[in-house]
Amino acid sequence: MSKDKLDVVGIGNAIVDVLCKTDDAFLKNNHIHKGTMTLIETDQAKALYAKMGPCIEMSGGSAANTVAAFASMGGKVGYIGKVADDQMGEVFRHDIRSTGVVYDTLPLLKEDVPTSRCLIMITPDAQRTMCTNLGASVFFMPMDLDEKMIKNAQVTYLEGYLFDRAHAKQSFRMAAELAHAAGKKIALTLSDPFCVDRHRDDFLELVRSHVDILFANEAEIMSLYKTDSFPEALPHCELAVITRSEKGSVIISKKETIEIPAEPVAQVVDTTGAGDLYAAGFLYGYTRGKPLAQCGRIASIAAAEIIAQVGARPQRSLSQLLKDKKAA
Amino acid sequence: MSKDKLDVVGIGNAIVDVLCKTDDAFLKNNHIHKGTMTLIETDQAKALYAKMGPCIEMSGGSAANTVAAFASMGGKVGYIGKVADDQMGEVFRHDIRSTGVVYDTLPLLKEDVPTSRCLIMITPDAQRTMCTNLGASVFFMPMDLDEKMIKNAQVTYLEGYLFDRAHAKQSFRMAAELAHAAGKKIALTLSDPFCVDRHRDDFLELVRSHVDILFANEAEIMSLYKTDSFPEALPHCELAVITRSEKGSVIISKKETIEIPAEPVAQVVDTTGAGDLYAAGFLYGYTRGKPLAQCGRIASIAAAEIIAQVGARPQRSLSQLLKDKKAA
Repeated sequence: MSKDKLDVVGIGNAIVDVLCKTDDAFLKNNHIHKGTMTLIETDQAKALYAKMGPCIEMSGGSAANTVAAFASMGGKVGYIGKVADDQMGEVFRHDIRSTGVVYDTLPLLKEDVPTSRCLIMITPDAQRTMCTNLGASVFFMPMDLDEKMIKNAQVTYLEGYLFDRAHAKQSFRMAAELAHAAGKKIALTLSDPFCVDRHRDDFLELVRSHVDILFANEAEIMSLYKTDSFPEALPHCELAVITRSEKGSVIISKKETIEIPAEPVAQVVDTTGAGDLYAAGFLYGYTRGKPLAQCGRIASIAAAEIIAQVGARPQRSLSQLLKDKKAA
Repeated sequence: MSKDKLDVVGIGNAIVDVLCKTDDAFLKNNHIHKGTMTLIETDQAKALYAKMGPCIEMSGGSAANTVAAFASMGGKVGYIGKVADDQMGEVFRHDIRSTGVVYDTLPLLKEDVPTSRCLIMITPDAQRTMCTNLGASVFFMPMDLDEKMIKNAQVTYLEGYLFDRAHAKQSFRMAAELAHAAGKKIALTLSDPFCVDRHRDDFLELVRSHVDILFANEAEIMSLYKTDSFPEALPHCELAVITRSEKGSVIISKKETIEIPAEPVAQVVDTTGAGDLYAAGFLYGYTRGKPLAQCGRIASIAAAEIIAQVGARPQRSLSQLLKDKKAA
């Protein structure tokens, strides 16, 4: 696929997920707070992995999940993110390309730094608890930005998680400047309340100066504005899209506030990727000029689909699903 | 777990499975015969993988699946098989150990040979078609045999697939001699009709001289004896266990022939691992001295469980399943 006309380009941590089923006692015994994403060092990751049961490996990464889902809906999309030159990096590259995403970021050539991986523990209540061991993905440099993709994409979608390293922050600002200079939009997902907490001032500055579309859940938006009630935390950008789990979502523009109900799910199996797929659906509608309420509905359908399966990459065609639901 | 008292030790190709959903047209376009296992070279594997859709990775290997399932039933079991010192090897080692299997074969230290992997394509009819790129697993040498495990295990279970290399054949004969000298049993699975065809004389010699319990499906046993009707192909060992897909299985001893019906399955999702899990269930009953009909029932329940999910490693406790089914 060509880079000449993209709907969206995503920039994020290129990660391989390592998923296993576990129980609450395991999390408690290992002092892991359920439902969160914790950054862990290599030694901690080794020790935790040794205690985990049999796993499956599949490509992950928040923005990468979003672009893979976007491609599955039939959209034209690119990805920028860094893996290592190792087997897990090969898995990541294969999977994202095989969905039709344009991806050609060069792998990191630093022998002792592997592809980033995320240990995901799924409890019987379908919640996912993540421990991420960052590797090659945070060696993301401004020179990895693909100017052509960014200038040609209607929306450049930035993943907050990548903010955990200084070079990546600098890259985000550069990406925002490139996109705006070409008359395009910048979207940002806050990713995680603790990530926001670690980098609040930088996030606030980025949102105020550069972000057109902000994605967040309630905990993240409240963390950003240091408030404990959601409606007080209204960002100053063109669009804010706040997800609220089973309570649905809220889309806030300068003109209106639209409440979107959650799409019903027969059985929630694993909540990994819910926010990522929501963003994919919203951007799919947005880049096709659909009314905001319809963008929200497509988003909710995509999120409902991913929580009914294990893992954050869709196992069936979302394009067909949207047709079946008469949503797009 | 200790090696002092094992029910079973399995010896086989240590493999990581790479699974994706596909359709019949994909197999046809790539000249792959549905339902078979084909050995492919590294270049072919790269070319095929590049064409495959998004995949999931999980530990596999026929005998390895059998021992993992055996451990999940609550049995004491070891495994001998060779991975490379790479990320996929680490995945394999983690997963098999995490199920409770004793596994400490040293990885191969040959930089250009990776851990073996099997590309598994699942068609909408739930059939699996496998293309295996053998790597480290076939560098299995007699020195990798763990004498202590073999002498202490009631049954040493050999995977026919490993027969594709000369050193492995030699290792099989040595394992058989070690086990018999200690008064223990040798079981063999024929694995694949084409594998049998490639090594018919060696298989016949092994079955005649060393094998106490033979596992095969109809195609494999007919290939071994070069006949095209099943009842004519009766092997000369203590027990022959012939699986016949939805027609169930047949257990043939010197005294009797027992037909076992297949266990009903609500929806067959992926037949990968059916034979491996059947062998696990049979050996679980056998090593506990259960009557042959009960061994067959446990086997059928385990096989039914694995074809109702994706992949060949059980996702829930087989020990609990056997309790629920009042089978063991």
